[in-house]
Amino acid sequence: MRHSYHEDLDQIQTDLVEMTRLVGVAVSRATYALTDGNLEIAQQVIAGDEVVNALYREVEARAYDLLARQQPVASDLRTLVSDLRMVVDLERAGDYAVHLAKIARRRAPQPAVPAELRETVLAMGRVAEAIAVKAGTVIATQNIGLAGELQADDDDMDRLQRQLFHALLQSGLGDSTETAIDVTLVGRYYERLADHAVAVAGRVVFMVTGSHLVATD
Amino acid sequence: MRHSYHEDLDQIQTDLVEMTRLVGVAVSRATYALTDGNLEIAQQVIAGDEVVNALYREVEARAYDLLARQQPVASDLRTLVSDLRMVVDLERAGDYAVHLAKIARRRAPQPAVPAELRETVLAMGRVAEAIAVKAGTVIATQNIGLAGELQADDDDMDRLQRQLFHALLQSGLGDSTETAIDVTLVGRYYERLADHAVAVAGRVVFMVTGSHLVATD
Repeated sequence: MRHSYHEDLDQIQTDLVEMTRLVGVAVSRATYALTDGNLEIAQQVIAGDEVVNALYREVEARAYDLLARQQPVASDLRTLVSDLRMVVDLERAGDYAVHLAKIARRRAPQPAVPAELRETVLAMGRVAEAIAVKAGTVIATQNIGLAGELQADDDDMDRLQRQLFHALLQSGLGDSTETAIDVTLVGRYYERLADHAVAVAGRVVFMVTGSHLVATD
Repeated sequence: MRHSYHEDLDQIQTDLVEMTRLVGVAVSRATYALTDGNLEIAQQVIAGDEVVNALYREVEARAYDLLARQQPVASDLRTLVSDLRMVVDLERAGDYAVHLAKIARRRAPQPAVPAELRETVLAMGRVAEAIAVKAGTVIATQNIGLAGELQADDDDMDRLQRQLFHALLQSGLGDSTETAIDVTLVGRYYERLADHAVAVAGRVVFMVTGSHLVATD
């Protein structure tokens, strides 16, 4: 059965919001797996990424189909092109939750994050989850003000990443090079996950206003 | 003056190839700056990214203009949507060269990479540069066979990254946590840069054949 044009556009939006929800859940679980050394939860995150990937393929196929069949102009064109970019960012954000879970899995049942750094990593997990959830709200509501708020959350994440590296340098935990590598990657993965989710919100701004900022990583 | 449709498409292709060339040069220079502690070269890489960003904006504006004005179908539509994604990957690849250069700058005139790890990092730099150059050739020639070759190069890069982390673990260099953090990030940045360049080649495959793989990071 062929859906109407607007039903298809709505379905894409619904799928993108669902992807943000899944990424939020995944990063929250990955954080638990990292800080508690929980193998089972880590494996759930890793296996769960297939759902995100399936949504990625579904959104992409639907958006191309609409572009080809409907030849939309102006704001509908911007919407579909933006959808095709947002879906890449969300798929990547999901991958970073998997990267975090894989570090947890490698160290389980030991926590990959030493006790001294646990609070900072928990905070990074909370900020990442909040950013993913807000990105979903921005997609659903096209609330440009909230998109701006995400930039501030992203600054929080950058600050937490610096704090994590600083604590790692100060703590003497670097005596274990393996810990130093893992914690460095953990910090980086949270930061990248947040960056992709924030980029999604930026694309909504472009979609709505037609103007945008260059992603600067 | 308004260009013809095909002139505009050609210009986009030319700009994308130029971006791959600039990224190749940037990563080569960043590698030199990292391994030799050369501040001036590091600063050239950082400043040079503005040219990549300007090309990003130019390609994006031109592609949107063509999408809106020409309402292309089938292969031209696939080309323009692919262009809009490739340009994001190339802009990001350029950012990773800057990230590498910033680590070099922070440590200069000391090399950020200890002597024991120098050969591995030089090899990563060579592979990254080769991937960027080949991505440009794939864009220019739409040679699908060469796109497949890039996957093998990317496997080389992943192997080098593991080798780097392994050497870091074995070497006792982790006594300096700062070195452990920097080398971990360096390894990760090369791997990401290569991944974005390989993704570009993957998008050319999609453009030409209409079928593609999900990016799996």
